[in-house]
Amino acid sequence: METISQSRCYGGTQGAYRHDSRTTGTPMTFAVYEPEHRSTGRLPVIWWLSGLTCTHENAMNKLEYKEACSEHGIIFVCPDTSPRGDEVPDDEAYDFGKGAGFYVDATQDPWADSFRMRSYIEDEFMDVVAQNFPVDMERQGIAGHSMGGHGALTVSLRNPGRFRSTSAFSPIVSPLNCPWGEKAMTGYLGPDREAWRPYDSVALIEDGARIDNLVVHQGRDDQFLDEQLKTWLLSDALRHAGMDAAVHMHEGYDHSYFFVSTFIAGNIAWHAERLKA
Amino acid sequence: METISQSRCYGGTQGAYRHDSRTTGTPMTFAVYEPEHRSTGRLPVIWWLSGLTCTHENAMNKLEYKEACSEHGIIFVCPDTSPRGDEVPDDEAYDFGKGAGFYVDATQDPWADSFRMRSYIEDEFMDVVAQNFPVDMERQGIAGHSMGGHGALTVSLRNPGRFRSTSAFSPIVSPLNCPWGEKAMTGYLGPDREAWRPYDSVALIEDGARIDNLVVHQGRDDQFLDEQLKTWLLSDALRHAGMDAAVHMHEGYDHSYFFVSTFIAGNIAWHAERLKA
Repeated sequence: METISQSRCYGGTQGAYRHDSRTTGTPMTFAVYEPEHRSTGRLPVIWWLSGLTCTHENAMNKLEYKEACSEHGIIFVCPDTSPRGDEVPDDEAYDFGKGAGFYVDATQDPWADSFRMRSYIEDEFMDVVAQNFPVDMERQGIAGHSMGGHGALTVSLRNPGRFRSTSAFSPIVSPLNCPWGEKAMTGYLGPDREAWRPYDSVALIEDGARIDNLVVHQGRDDQFLDEQLKTWLLSDALRHAGMDAAVHMHEGYDHSYFFVSTFIAGNIAWHAERLKA
Repeated sequence: METISQSRCYGGTQGAYRHDSRTTGTPMTFAVYEPEHRSTGRLPVIWWLSGLTCTHENAMNKLEYKEACSEHGIIFVCPDTSPRGDEVPDDEAYDFGKGAGFYVDATQDPWADSFRMRSYIEDEFMDVVAQNFPVDMERQGIAGHSMGGHGALTVSLRNPGRFRSTSAFSPIVSPLNCPWGEKAMTGYLGPDREAWRPYDSVALIEDGARIDNLVVHQGRDDQFLDEQLKTWLLSDALRHAGMDAAVHMHEGYDHSYFFVSTFIAGNIAWHAERLKA
């Protein structure tokens, strides 16, 4: 692992790092906020999955999580959203290819070799972080925004019990039922829609997945709500499944980091209650 | 004035705007955070001047001022750092030309026509904002970072009594005595160093300028401290002048927004005490 940068922030350290991933076959960058702590013990961790077009840097620079993580003693980790590099295939669109990995393991050429973000996150990245930072893998929360909200929901629903708390801001709740999802799933996974279901939070719940401690935050003035995000599909699935989850709709808020930042400190406190219980 | 974007944030509105400046002869962009307020009265304002390479967007996206401004009921305004556009002269360097206006009125060709950031800020921009937002021009504070810290100090020192409070993070305290300053002042103002003194906070104090309610925040691990910022020159000038100002040195902090964000809420509370007294 290589250190790209480290800066003191709210008493802790905000760093950016790089490692060579065996899963994607590329170097992968990520950001870690480590609060000040004198003990040699391990700290709870929140994994933050970012949205379309983002690298590890967007949340690191724009999302106001650091003060709350400092206060609650939580490590906050932001991976990249896709493999990178000249040898990695790409697409001109902002919603496919680099910056748009959708947290799937691609099966279609030319994506299948490197676009393996599901396996990267679930089977490699979290372990790499745990080997290099004092995270307590018994106290993990997962969260994300937009495409990363989709990532947080689906990673957690596929791994019940692994995360004590799951939150999603402005998530894409059902790639099966929106243009962003249909484009990405067709491109990465092919036309068989059955193969998409492990990457669709609504389908996962329909197919029996259950998790506790789930909360969703969604702005009512989000420009993508009606066509892409369709929060109500998740609300319906949660209700039909009898799951005890909260979906908070926020009047006047849009899809931006200005919205997410407004509610991130409260969300981190919510995670902290569960991670430190 | 044209609205570029508006997003709800901490109950208020973070917007980006554009107007045609008669001073620079170009369109100029700026950011305004307006907290939620029901009264028809006017609110105190903090003018934030940004550093090298920045537009209005850097502080808007990276600096964690919004929650504190929401809490204290303060409007927070970020202008650009230079004129922009294809017709504006530029330099390849990051520290001269676009993004590096240094808050001076250039006298040298080809800069003199458009690089008039002193007059823009002091004589045009603040009035444009006051005509379009409910700012109380009797309750103004000014602040900034790095080149913008230099801007805040020198704008305030040239206009005693206009700002109730002045703060500077990691400021360039004396362009007469550092490579960034010597390069910019030579380029914009020519070789006569007497002409630089109105743009040098140390020289302004030596020449008799006095302001109240001044605070400086500086990271001790700032990579630019020894060669460019030289905070001690300002500390010495303040002491010799018998000015009641505070210079806070912060152990372990560098030059980044991670440093500024760590202390901005406390700094806004400090401004608020003076603006709302």
